[in-house]
Amino acid sequence: MDTMRTEISDLGEFGLIEHLTKNNEIQQAGTLLSVGDDAAVIDQFGRQSVISTDLLIEGVHFDLTYTPLKHLGYKSVVVNLSDIYAMLATPTHITMSVGISNKFSVEALEEFYEGVYAACERFHVDLIGGDTSTSQKGFIISVTAIGEVAPDKFVTRSGARVNDLICVTGDLGAAYLGLQLLEREKKIFRENPTIQPNLEGQAYLVERLLKPEPRADVVEWLVDNGITPTSMIDVSDGLSSEMLHICTKSEVGCVLHEEKIPLHPDTVHMAMEFHVGSAACALNGGEDYELLFTIKQEDYAKISENKDISVIGFITDKNEGAHLLTKGGGKHKLVAQGWNAF
Amino acid sequence: MDTMRTEISDLGEFGLIEHLTKNNEIQQAGTLLSVGDDAAVIDQFGRQSVISTDLLIEGVHFDLTYTPLKHLGYKSVVVNLSDIYAMLATPTHITMSVGISNKFSVEALEEFYEGVYAACERFHVDLIGGDTSTSQKGFIISVTAIGEVAPDKFVTRSGARVNDLICVTGDLGAAYLGLQLLEREKKIFRENPTIQPNLEGQAYLVERLLKPEPRADVVEWLVDNGITPTSMIDVSDGLSSEMLHICTKSEVGCVLHEEKIPLHPDTVHMAMEFHVGSAACALNGGEDYELLFTIKQEDYAKISENKDISVIGFITDKNEGAHLLTKGGGKHKLVAQGWNAF
Repeated sequence: MDTMRTEISDLGEFGLIEHLTKNNEIQQAGTLLSVGDDAAVIDQFGRQSVISTDLLIEGVHFDLTYTPLKHLGYKSVVVNLSDIYAMLATPTHITMSVGISNKFSVEALEEFYEGVYAACERFHVDLIGGDTSTSQKGFIISVTAIGEVAPDKFVTRSGARVNDLICVTGDLGAAYLGLQLLEREKKIFRENPTIQPNLEGQAYLVERLLKPEPRADVVEWLVDNGITPTSMIDVSDGLSSEMLHICTKSEVGCVLHEEKIPLHPDTVHMAMEFHVGSAACALNGGEDYELLFTIKQEDYAKISENKDISVIGFITDKNEGAHLLTKGGGKHKLVAQGWNAF
Repeated sequence: MDTMRTEISDLGEFGLIEHLTKNNEIQQAGTLLSVGDDAAVIDQFGRQSVISTDLLIEGVHFDLTYTPLKHLGYKSVVVNLSDIYAMLATPTHITMSVGISNKFSVEALEEFYEGVYAACERFHVDLIGGDTSTSQKGFIISVTAIGEVAPDKFVTRSGARVNDLICVTGDLGAAYLGLQLLEREKKIFRENPTIQPNLEGQAYLVERLLKPEPRADVVEWLVDNGITPTSMIDVSDGLSSEMLHICTKSEVGCVLHEEKIPLHPDTVHMAMEFHVGSAACALNGGEDYELLFTIKQEDYAKISENKDISVIGFITDKNEGAHLLTKGGGKHKLVAQGWNAF
């Protein structure tokens, strides 16, 4: 056979999505924003809905050897809500489909759904549908979140302008180190099952990985204070990757200051133990589910009042590229090392 | 360990969903219809959206040895649209997530998406989002469909009343026989690869399985003719299973006339070849994606004008149960033999 074969790894995740959706034709007048942002936006009769979906697969996105099912249920919901919040919207509903092999008992699934309902209750979201199926191997979770936003108040990845300030919520890199920690303890346990995992004093890092919290609070604060970010994205694949998404979509460049990247003391400490740079964990780690956004300079005074928001850089002209200024005064090109599981 | 373990197979699919969602609390005032119908309905600012989702897993829901990827893409979309039409609503948008192992090439995925876009174009639906992930094994597809319906005009499974007439569109049982045919040819081919599959003259049965068409036409006709079914469901798991869903949700009984069940001549012929009753294929086969609905008696004259709709029985009191009257005059209790893959 002489059929052409292109490996998916040649394109990577983002390249693949772009390739497959390049001929996607919009037919509905109400489609305001389609593939390529944190969520899509549809407008019908003046109301705007925001829709996002995620597929989570055992062995790819989570490891059940150290992920309690209740936490997994909670996280499956909140990673989707995070995408809705990243549009400056409010999530209202989810659907949840699961594919399960017969190694799972009803009690195990109950535990998973306990976490799902806990997230729904905490963020005032209704579970309105789903599908339950057998799977040949592993646990498969598909969630779609639906939210609402005041007409034309949604924030995309494409509105950043030169001189805008770059902001990020909370702190970054902790979830990545939580993962490294759990992977290390899993390896030790496998090699010698008499040694029990030592996670003492590491609650923060582990919780950041296993039970992330979407920044509903910051979105509410922004709306209440009349601050509309010019662009926004949630940090699921690492700061570098998300920053580059904003730069590409907004057709701008950026400068990030390494010393301004917010890090938790536990992150700094554990990065040293693992002999990696703590800023590198923030830049390339991912799974923080914080919000990365840009604001106009005139909003700086207001933003600086919120201790949960750090200004970490500014937007430049596209020709200047995307760079990181290190503490030592070096200037490095920003590179996306995020997700590439293929 | 003394932990209780209940097997999922003890509950079955529908029992499992009911069990896991029994504590599902509704918090959003706009949630009009939640888990337990073909789709959910949410109302915000007077507009009503209908949402449905499906998870399709290789080896469970489809077999790539005889399913062309383009057909699979098309079918993944239309089985979801069928759920939206079953609410008397019009689909407008979908999200599509795929999990793929590295055995797939970019070209293979392109073929799949060709089918996806063909369905979107045919039914005027926009693909607005999704997720692409690696999978450890097999092809995983998750689709969420969103539609709209005039306020409070959606049709559920729970509105059937005593003396209503039971109607079904098109013909039933063909997809099931298409599947048996392909499974037979696959087995023959595996045992002796020099024998090529013999599907001559079986285009109808095979196409009913591989390229089902949701009944957008019938929904449009019903709306245009001012006929609002009292209850409706799409036939994905076989006539018996769907009829029992309507009876349970509407708290009624029913009588179905075997001789009235619409069958295609190819279905009758192939059922004989396989030594099974053709009505049994309709009752237990599934994957027909026709619409099963009930109407008030006063709508009978209008309904009888549409040659694509057959009246196959009537609704009775709950105490009378759900029965099938056979051609020979026998009366059998209706039993759901649909999906139970656990």
